[in-house]
Amino acid sequence: MKRDELWVDEEQTEDLRLGLRVKSVLLRERTAYQDLLVVDTDAFGHVMFLDGCFMVTEKDEFFYHEMLAHVPLMAHPDPRQVLIVGGGDGGTLREVLKHPEVEQAVLCDIDQRVTEAARAFFPTLSVSLDDPRATIMHQDAIDLVAKASAKWDVILVDSTDPVGAAEGLFSKPFLRDLKRALAPGGIAVCQAESPLVNADVMRRTYLGLKEAFPKASLYTGPAPTYPSGYWSYAVGHEGGDLLPQLRPQPLGRYYTKAVHAAAFALPPFVQELLR
Amino acid sequence: MKRDELWVDEEQTEDLRLGLRVKSVLLRERTAYQDLLVVDTDAFGHVMFLDGCFMVTEKDEFFYHEMLAHVPLMAHPDPRQVLIVGGGDGGTLREVLKHPEVEQAVLCDIDQRVTEAARAFFPTLSVSLDDPRATIMHQDAIDLVAKASAKWDVILVDSTDPVGAAEGLFSKPFLRDLKRALAPGGIAVCQAESPLVNADVMRRTYLGLKEAFPKASLYTGPAPTYPSGYWSYAVGHEGGDLLPQLRPQPLGRYYTKAVHAAAFALPPFVQELLR
Repeated sequence: MKRDELWVDEEQTEDLRLGLRVKSVLLRERTAYQDLLVVDTDAFGHVMFLDGCFMVTEKDEFFYHEMLAHVPLMAHPDPRQVLIVGGGDGGTLREVLKHPEVEQAVLCDIDQRVTEAARAFFPTLSVSLDDPRATIMHQDAIDLVAKASAKWDVILVDSTDPVGAAEGLFSKPFLRDLKRALAPGGIAVCQAESPLVNADVMRRTYLGLKEAFPKASLYTGPAPTYPSGYWSYAVGHEGGDLLPQLRPQPLGRYYTKAVHAAAFALPPFVQELLR
Repeated sequence: MKRDELWVDEEQTEDLRLGLRVKSVLLRERTAYQDLLVVDTDAFGHVMFLDGCFMVTEKDEFFYHEMLAHVPLMAHPDPRQVLIVGGGDGGTLREVLKHPEVEQAVLCDIDQRVTEAARAFFPTLSVSLDDPRATIMHQDAIDLVAKASAKWDVILVDSTDPVGAAEGLFSKPFLRDLKRALAPGGIAVCQAESPLVNADVMRRTYLGLKEAFPKASLYTGPAPTYPSGYWSYAVGHEGGDLLPQLRPQPLGRYYTKAVHAAAFALPPFVQELLR
């Protein structure tokens, strides 16, 4: 490390930290819900941290957003109504709106400041926030989901880690509410953290969905700036193999139909954690 | 970070660093070829660094070693003679010897101290070093490969990053020598770094193999403590799809035949880098 360099490190577990060299600090505030930090870097472009955790970087956000959105949307035969829980930066919404079948996408993130920061500093993420098919709400998604019934075809839970504001998004009552909020044939996906360093969260999320839905599945993919760089997504659904439907695939940098199918090939150590 | 904590960080690129909290330092020396550091950690067990780079951790080494070894060995119809270039810690050798077809595996690592450190501090890695089917050599593998002809069925290049001692292992003359050193139908695999943060190395290794062999292929997998956690492996071979043969698969924590096939589903941004 040279003199006068500024670094920001996330302690991803008690024992593991990931750091980036910072060119400048663009925004640093305490919102009503969390600490929000936006920095500029050479290596990963603009980077947003929430409560000290990497949330998005311009360089690597496509892995996570494409896999969270496209797998359930391509697996659903006719995804018209979509709810995004969290995801206030707009990255998941951008991917959802690549699907011409989608008539309305509701983004519900409790923290309006995340969306405002995305508009100010992440133009490639916030690009779809003003799309006529998008509805942006800033309220607790737990209430929204609890009051809904047979409403959405696909629900994407694009949450922060299961501490603080997002803790309820990993609870059993919420996972049961997801099922009731879905229309027949609906699919819910929850980001489920790292199989290597958050195995307990992954397992709990998967088993919670398995209780609430006729079937649960899990798929994985890279997420370089999240802990261990190896990420999981847990799916609650009505059955079947969740393979992509026959329609054309969205254009992306990580997702293809072959990548989609490959993401369900689980290694033995992950299979064991789901038992 | 609490007081009196000891951390070790690798600057994985100029702008990116990964750190682990250290319980104690087990070994720290300058060998004839590189800086060698072994530490004990709560999170990842014993960890070896070479020239300041994460080389192996007890917790996550299975991702890399299984994928480096099992994909080419399961793709080859009858892998009897195997050469490991580098890999002095023994992890790749351990995986190679899980294949009953293998009659002899030669491990050639220039630095004897790496192997001695593995014997002392990484019992689960060094477990196969005394196997009767294993031959351990400490010399420059570049000479060994240059002098060989039609000798090995599979060659695995388990190198450090392309700086210092390992630089020649990424050169075009070495990649051409690999082809000549292989028996008919032989397969060579080179670890080819991160598609995200070492795209130039991945591309150069793949294109070098493509020049030297009738066909080159590439597959990817997780490697949590290597830069970006997302890793690539470049293959030089005579053609075909490199899918697993019909024999039983080795027992592992990451590898299965389905994972093997899935690893070749390349995302669009990687496909573009290979053009």
